[in-house]
Amino acid sequence: MIEILTLSGGIGGAKLVLGLDRILSPGTLATVCNTGDDFEHLGLSISPDIDTVTYTLASIANTKTGWGRANETWTFMAALADLGGETWFQLGDADLALHVERTRQLALGESLSDITDIIRRRLVIGSEIIPMSDQPVRTRVKTRDGILPFQHYFVKHRCCPAVNGFEFDGIDLAQPAPRFSELLTGDKLKAIIICPSNPFISIDPILALPGVCQALRDNGAPVVAISPIINGQAIKGPTAKMMAELGLPVDSAGIAMHYGNLIDALVVDHSDSARLPDTGPRIFRAATLMHSEADKRALAGEVLSIAKSLGTNC
Amino acid sequence: MIEILTLSGGIGGAKLVLGLDRILSPGTLATVCNTGDDFEHLGLSISPDIDTVTYTLASIANTKTGWGRANETWTFMAALADLGGETWFQLGDADLALHVERTRQLALGESLSDITDIIRRRLVIGSEIIPMSDQPVRTRVKTRDGILPFQHYFVKHRCCPAVNGFEFDGIDLAQPAPRFSELLTGDKLKAIIICPSNPFISIDPILALPGVCQALRDNGAPVVAISPIINGQAIKGPTAKMMAELGLPVDSAGIAMHYGNLIDALVVDHSDSARLPDTGPRIFRAATLMHSEADKRALAGEVLSIAKSLGTNC
Repeated sequence: MIEILTLSGGIGGAKLVLGLDRILSPGTLATVCNTGDDFEHLGLSISPDIDTVTYTLASIANTKTGWGRANETWTFMAALADLGGETWFQLGDADLALHVERTRQLALGESLSDITDIIRRRLVIGSEIIPMSDQPVRTRVKTRDGILPFQHYFVKHRCCPAVNGFEFDGIDLAQPAPRFSELLTGDKLKAIIICPSNPFISIDPILALPGVCQALRDNGAPVVAISPIINGQAIKGPTAKMMAELGLPVDSAGIAMHYGNLIDALVVDHSDSARLPDTGPRIFRAATLMHSEADKRALAGEVLSIAKSLGTNC
Repeated sequence: MIEILTLSGGIGGAKLVLGLDRILSPGTLATVCNTGDDFEHLGLSISPDIDTVTYTLASIANTKTGWGRANETWTFMAALADLGGETWFQLGDADLALHVERTRQLALGESLSDITDIIRRRLVIGSEIIPMSDQPVRTRVKTRDGILPFQHYFVKHRCCPAVNGFEFDGIDLAQPAPRFSELLTGDKLKAIIICPSNPFISIDPILALPGVCQALRDNGAPVVAISPIINGQAIKGPTAKMMAELGLPVDSAGIAMHYGNLIDALVVDHSDSARLPDTGPRIFRAATLMHSEADKRALAGEVLSIAKSLGTNC
């Protein structure tokens, strides 16, 4: 029975999810993945955050790049370049199998939820992986140069354009995935964990789905977020750059403000020197930098302890 | 200006096309490829005969297998197998780039003719490669076990079921590709060459397109076929097996009967001992087994000489 629900984006979130997966009993963890980064490329349906979490839990992720698979080959991309195809988004040969299989099953009318679940079972992953929605939601980044589809902003333009906001195209017509709703509205959860992912582009699309924020508050399980910012720096990715461009304080206080009363607790790094507000979520300290699997398991354990300590208060 | 038009299937035909390509002036050879073998697999549009001719002329074909590319890697197939995907049709990582790119361009509304031409130009192929039609035609093989889609018969069932006929699904609604029609109805061709491909599944779909047989007769250029049978054996593939199952004489005489008065000449191997009919196409002898590129160039030269010798008679 699922007791712990995490909300996650890609690389940063997947690290904590791995730690949780490794210390929890099989079948007790479910991760809801952002699908706002999903896109169609070369005719293939690509779900980067689902894939990163899937590859990470299956121990086949490329931990150096933070995306794609380990022991990958690149013959396809080289041949595509020779044919004059689009090569700005790198697709490894093994990675491609997942996109081709997902696209094929979507074309047959299967839901992204079912496809994701079939794949994680094939890869012998004990934890559930759930797309935030079975309907397409597409993050668009508002920049000074105009509105960019997410992967164009993120990969093609390498996060260079200054950001002044986000749109989640399709969000009004989307519903939380059935299993996500079921878990959120059930009474079995002992904690809801918001991973140290980018709040704006990884977590906000999940929270923007109709009814999710309310269900999160109503669930009763403590909601614990882990700050992705340590001393004004993001561990990876454009979180800090975005906060500055959006005019937010670039520190854990900015993260606390961003999530506000949606969360019961914010976990910040021991070394973090941000001046954190007295109001808002309770602040806990932990070692949030995760390099080794031991780091990931340790932080996972800390977060679960924090959630447990909050359990009766919420 | 195109002077030589060939009709070809995959491996056997591609050998002669290579020989012709290497001895003719650039821009004077065009090859019309069978598309009856085309199919949709894993959501991808695959055109095996176009691909074999393209890879052969670009010198990147796998000459050992007769399909796919040389120096191929197989990471995609291995990963797909891990995901439980369909693996009965082998797709190499580099080969996949062509299918993904073709599928993408078809989805954008490009014609198979234009896509095929763009690709052969990218691969610096001087000869034209033309799909027989831009509309889908799908060969189905009538067997004792029922009607099978071509690739199921050919790859999945390894040509085992006994054949008793063929259907070319979609043929009535298909038109010869525009460039094919243009060349057939023009007056610039010096020869039309029917490659030593399987008559039933590689050449007949081309000939079955509305108007093609009549245009072939009306064109005025000599039509020369090369027998794919030597002493009752097919060099590769199920031609001899099919002829036996269809109740035809399994020799070059059977090939002569099959093409009948559509061709002006049939080229048979020097060693062939078939008793050839006195009526029907004129019979010429040449070394039709093509192992080396020298063999291919030599046969190409012989066939062009034969066509030239017929030129004024037709």
